[in-house]
Amino acid sequence: MSDILDEVLERIKPTKDEIGFVGGVVSEIIQRTNDAISQLGLTAKTMLVGSVARGTWLRHDPDIDIFILFKETLTREELERKGMAVARKVAGPAGEEKFAEHPYVTMKFHGIDIDLVPCYDVADPRKIKSAVDRSPHHQRYVEGRLTPQLADEVLLLKQFALGTGVYGAELKRQGFSGYLCELLILHYSSFSRLVEEVSRWVPGEVIDTLSYYPDKSEAKIIFDNQPLVVVDPVDPGRNAAAAVSLQNFSIFVRASQDFLDRPSLRFFFPKRVKLLTPAGLDRILKRRGTRLFCIVFRSPKVAPDVLYPQLRKTEKAIVTRLVQEGFEVLRSDVWADSISAILVELSVSRLPSVKTRIGPPPNISAKDFIREHLSSRNSLAGPMVDIAGRVIFEVKREWNDALAFLRDIMSQRVSFGKHVSEAVSQRYWIYEGEGLKEPLKDSGFREFLSEYLTRRLPWYR
Amino acid sequence: MSDILDEVLERIKPTKDEIGFVGGVVSEIIQRTNDAISQLGLTAKTMLVGSVARGTWLRHDPDIDIFILFKETLTREELERKGMAVARKVAGPAGEEKFAEHPYVTMKFHGIDIDLVPCYDVADPRKIKSAVDRSPHHQRYVEGRLTPQLADEVLLLKQFALGTGVYGAELKRQGFSGYLCELLILHYSSFSRLVEEVSRWVPGEVIDTLSYYPDKSEAKIIFDNQPLVVVDPVDPGRNAAAAVSLQNFSIFVRASQDFLDRPSLRFFFPKRVKLLTPAGLDRILKRRGTRLFCIVFRSPKVAPDVLYPQLRKTEKAIVTRLVQEGFEVLRSDVWADSISAILVELSVSRLPSVKTRIGPPPNISAKDFIREHLSSRNSLAGPMVDIAGRVIFEVKREWNDALAFLRDIMSQRVSFGKHVSEAVSQRYWIYEGEGLKEPLKDSGFREFLSEYLTRRLPWYR
Repeated sequence: MSDILDEVLERIKPTKDEIGFVGGVVSEIIQRTNDAISQLGLTAKTMLVGSVARGTWLRHDPDIDIFILFKETLTREELERKGMAVARKVAGPAGEEKFAEHPYVTMKFHGIDIDLVPCYDVADPRKIKSAVDRSPHHQRYVEGRLTPQLADEVLLLKQFALGTGVYGAELKRQGFSGYLCELLILHYSSFSRLVEEVSRWVPGEVIDTLSYYPDKSEAKIIFDNQPLVVVDPVDPGRNAAAAVSLQNFSIFVRASQDFLDRPSLRFFFPKRVKLLTPAGLDRILKRRGTRLFCIVFRSPKVAPDVLYPQLRKTEKAIVTRLVQEGFEVLRSDVWADSISAILVELSVSRLPSVKTRIGPPPNISAKDFIREHLSSRNSLAGPMVDIAGRVIFEVKREWNDALAFLRDIMSQRVSFGKHVSEAVSQRYWIYEGEGLKEPLKDSGFREFLSEYLTRRLPWYR
Repeated sequence: MSDILDEVLERIKPTKDEIGFVGGVVSEIIQRTNDAISQLGLTAKTMLVGSVARGTWLRHDPDIDIFILFKETLTREELERKGMAVARKVAGPAGEEKFAEHPYVTMKFHGIDIDLVPCYDVADPRKIKSAVDRSPHHQRYVEGRLTPQLADEVLLLKQFALGTGVYGAELKRQGFSGYLCELLILHYSSFSRLVEEVSRWVPGEVIDTLSYYPDKSEAKIIFDNQPLVVVDPVDPGRNAAAAVSLQNFSIFVRASQDFLDRPSLRFFFPKRVKLLTPAGLDRILKRRGTRLFCIVFRSPKVAPDVLYPQLRKTEKAIVTRLVQEGFEVLRSDVWADSISAILVELSVSRLPSVKTRIGPPPNISAKDFIREHLSSRNSLAGPMVDIAGRVIFEVKREWNDALAFLRDIMSQRVSFGKHVSEAVSQRYWIYEGEGLKEPLKDSGFREFLSEYLTRRLPWYR
């Protein structure tokens, strides 16, 4: 295993030259920020945080986070006005304003992505005013403990998470953040020990390095049975692994088990998905024999962290209505770029006209149930009694064609995400089977659909 | 309600003339039996039992049961030899030998069905050697308690059970025997009080007129949670309602509820099922949109009480395999005459090629599951992890065409009834959809299929 890890490190660890180059960029941008602060006559501190500050950035992927820290006495409005003034001045016309919980500026400088983020300089991390105020505390906690040796272990873990598909805490991904990777290495002290431990994790795992919770079951209750709880050392009320879904938790555990079993570079550098050609699409759809529907619409202009939860909510609403009507949904998924797509794969797209309505068991009155169905024009047979003694009717199914029903669902948009519902109400397309060749022309969608139809855990590709 | 009951009684109670005629036949047959016994130099008693003996026979449906009682000291072999000699002598060439638990003779005499049944004359009904030995005890118990007024109430109950489709304890029917109807009237003392009480029955009802079980929950346990327990007054270890299925129990309760709600002659004399024409069959199949399969074969030469349980077992085996393979079975049923039929109605007869195999949850090793599926040529996608954290594969479905799968099931005949399996191995036919016009030519099958496709509780027809 250690040969493999050496090889991985060889590939992902920044070279001296790269470190020198990034260091130069950092010095320059900090200098510029300090200059901007004094030119604007403000009182603020500049702080480099994140992976570049801690030496845990993956080669080719430096991401410089400059935080501009203001006194807590400022109002929110003052902070944003003054902070953004500094950031704009640093970035100049190259800057682009963004908005997560609060506004910030992003820019490219010497080819490197840089975020300029105003925040409060809060003494007690449990009393922060917004999530960004926590980053300086994370920075201080990690930099005081992370030796260069440990930083290498973090690099291995990040690449492992990346390769197995669970890296990133954004809502699109629901995986492991860089900070979480650092905390895990600080806890387990090496990548190889970490995979050993993770291979034995079960959902409900609690990691509490500073022993804030002597009773782990208490932590489980407080953190509401999340699959993974990693108590944030700078704020014991926060779960640093809150973003991790059960699915990604489980993938991470399986990856660790499989890696221990047969260590390989494939966990870090999986094969890429083979892109489907139109003919390949035909072939695979024929082999599956399912009915694959894809709902496409222009993506609403909101951040991915807003869009993805809405897409998933919409996916769930659609799947639930299909299932309630009797359609079997084999799998479904969502994807977004400039266009958004919701895939729904059905076993069968036409159901019979008749379906069974099950009424009360023998010990409950069936009077209303029977009266209601007898007077309905949709009753085909019944009342009868099944072998379990329940009264049943056979009634006409409201929807027996999946496409017609999908169009009805899309026109009603019940429980859809807000922005998704607005976008869909403008216009949407439903592609099915061979019709998917049309959206396949979009290279991003093509990658998504190719991965969907040949899905395997990345290290099995 | 009492007008209705008067009218029912008017229709079903034998007239004086009929009673006189049947009484004459009974006298004659008892005389003949006694003569046969003495002519053969045997020691035995003749006893009239059953509905004719108790005045609880429905007009046009007298059924004379003559029991020939021998001493307990005889061996089984002696009993059968001597008993059958008497019965054969009484019946002459008109007799037909039958076999239930033991041999007996049946004959038609002056147009009336007569059974001649040899049995042991056992003093203590709890020590009988076979079920037929119990009948004389039932006879003595009922005749000592049933006044002519109560006999009329029994007639009402029998016709009610007949009209609602739950009369008869034979395995084809799984309903209420004549003796059970008598016990229920002896317990509740009138038909109208009975329907009141039955309308409140819940599964697990225990009726114990002689209070053998002071603790009803004890009776429930002893009788293994049968839906209805009526402790046999002559043998507290026996449930006189053991034949009653949960389905028929529930129908009986619903019928009582509905009758109280709106008393009508329809509960006693329901409309007959309208027989389907070939064109009507087309119309109803189209309206249902389901795939109706009918497996037909020559009935094995066994009694209905042997055949029906085997048909139901076979039906269950077929339905279970279809469901396990992913086919949705809407309804199924069996029927037999000189041919036997198993109906299976599917929502859809073609499934996609792919199906999901769900593996272990996150806390269980998936190694074997993954290895096994990776090496299988049937895997189409996977391993992947679903949102519940379980490892899943998508594999090729073995059977996606219901008809081909049905033929495979019929060739394997796993868990089929023994005689059914033998009959099927000779030859069988599968009819589907419009093909059902072929067996529709059989008038018995036609009635069965017509009832199946327009099924309603009889009093709702």
